[in-house]
Amino acid sequence: MKKKILVVYAHPEPTSLTRTLVQVTVETLEKQGHEVIHSDLYGMHWKAVFDENDFPDRVDPNRLSFIAESAHAYVLGRQTEDVATEQAKLSSADAVILQFPLWWFGVPAILKGWIERVYAYGFGYGYKNEGNRYRYGDGALKGKKALVSVVAGGPPEDYGPRGINGPMDQLLFPLTHGALFYPGMDVLPIHPVYGATHIATAAEVEDVKEAWRCRVRRLFEDAPIPFRSQNGGGYPDRHTLGDNVAPGQNGLLAHIAGEAR
Amino acid sequence: MKKKILVVYAHPEPTSLTRTLVQVTVETLEKQGHEVIHSDLYGMHWKAVFDENDFPDRVDPNRLSFIAESAHAYVLGRQTEDVATEQAKLSSADAVILQFPLWWFGVPAILKGWIERVYAYGFGYGYKNEGNRYRYGDGALKGKKALVSVVAGGPPEDYGPRGINGPMDQLLFPLTHGALFYPGMDVLPIHPVYGATHIATAAEVEDVKEAWRCRVRRLFEDAPIPFRSQNGGGYPDRHTLGDNVAPGQNGLLAHIAGEAR
Repeated sequence: MKKKILVVYAHPEPTSLTRTLVQVTVETLEKQGHEVIHSDLYGMHWKAVFDENDFPDRVDPNRLSFIAESAHAYVLGRQTEDVATEQAKLSSADAVILQFPLWWFGVPAILKGWIERVYAYGFGYGYKNEGNRYRYGDGALKGKKALVSVVAGGPPEDYGPRGINGPMDQLLFPLTHGALFYPGMDVLPIHPVYGATHIATAAEVEDVKEAWRCRVRRLFEDAPIPFRSQNGGGYPDRHTLGDNVAPGQNGLLAHIAGEAR
Repeated sequence: MKKKILVVYAHPEPTSLTRTLVQVTVETLEKQGHEVIHSDLYGMHWKAVFDENDFPDRVDPNRLSFIAESAHAYVLGRQTEDVATEQAKLSSADAVILQFPLWWFGVPAILKGWIERVYAYGFGYGYKNEGNRYRYGDGALKGKKALVSVVAGGPPEDYGPRGINGPMDQLLFPLTHGALFYPGMDVLPIHPVYGATHIATAAEVEDVKEAWRCRVRRLFEDAPIPFRSQNGGGYPDRHTLGDNVAPGQNGLLAHIAGEAR
């Protein structure tokens, strides 16, 4: 069945490895008969900074509360056009693919600012104006697939279980769990490319493209990361893991079912 | 002895809790006889997006490599003035304090973009043009103190050891370990404020201010997080923990000496 996929990417250089992999995304999905829509953040000159200009019609002109103004702007349709457009693209998509270089162990500022501005109160959080009732597996984006393609300069061993940078899936937990699973998306395991600064030959690039092509092809088949949902029984008080859930485990990995400590 | 402290902050609303705590920082340090310098990112209209405009004099006008252009611009003094100014402020400071609201489990985009742009190759990484030789405890900012003040809307239990968001120190590991310890700073334990949306009365605000005042007073006395240094013996190959270091431990916390798993 034909699906719609939103590809959000954050690199200005068309010949970069990130952008090369964006091309693979588009070709692979279109070959499968799907429709691809783009958010080329650099190409769009996306406004990265969340500020007072996001709220042309203020509920309180004297004091800027981001939550209060965001809720007001979202519910009354007084958001800026760029934000409303991105929300509509997200809402219409069956899946979202994020593609970016790892900068200082996180997403580039332009992508962070996309999340901050597009995730309005009522949309990215505070769904149905119900505070934290719908989050972590439940929300406005429930059931959509999310897939992260990240390109790191450092070698894979630096990101291994005992690598000096820390494991990639833990470094990006604020993105996968905190930004994608939070409003309800099914988040697939991250697809990292390591040692990007040393990928030089055409054969090496082709290997990287092929590995990603395989992941994209299975976008609607692969199992998501088994993050525990807030409302699925793991968090009886909606704040902390129940005593019978992952007993004795602490930290980020306790929020993933079946994850060895 | 009189010290110089750079305070970098990221909230546009002067009456916000973040900015209230910035005032506490300034008052406390000046009362101690220190000199405070400011990087008010919103007030400065800091350019958050790292892009081709950061490199007015390109080594390769046809293809944008951030690392190559950053190294070129830094070593030849062809950076933009705003970036060079922030580097000079960092270099002249004995300590750096970052103050910001937690947005989507990380720093606001404007602060992420400050790190990305100011941390040039040769300065924030690639010190002495030696690749990864100097990092994680060694580098251009070696010996400076770093302290993070973060304001979160959610309650403390959400950030506890088994809290649904994950522990704050693990969520901000990419900042403390990956951005502050990386170029050599001694990073103090994070000072979080939780439940900010429910801090309402003057007495509650005063409690929050007083707790922070105590932390600021001890800026040059408190023990840093005992992150393991790359060149201190923990990583014989500069990539992974040695077999005799934290044996059997994996993940972020293995990089902190004495941290229970």
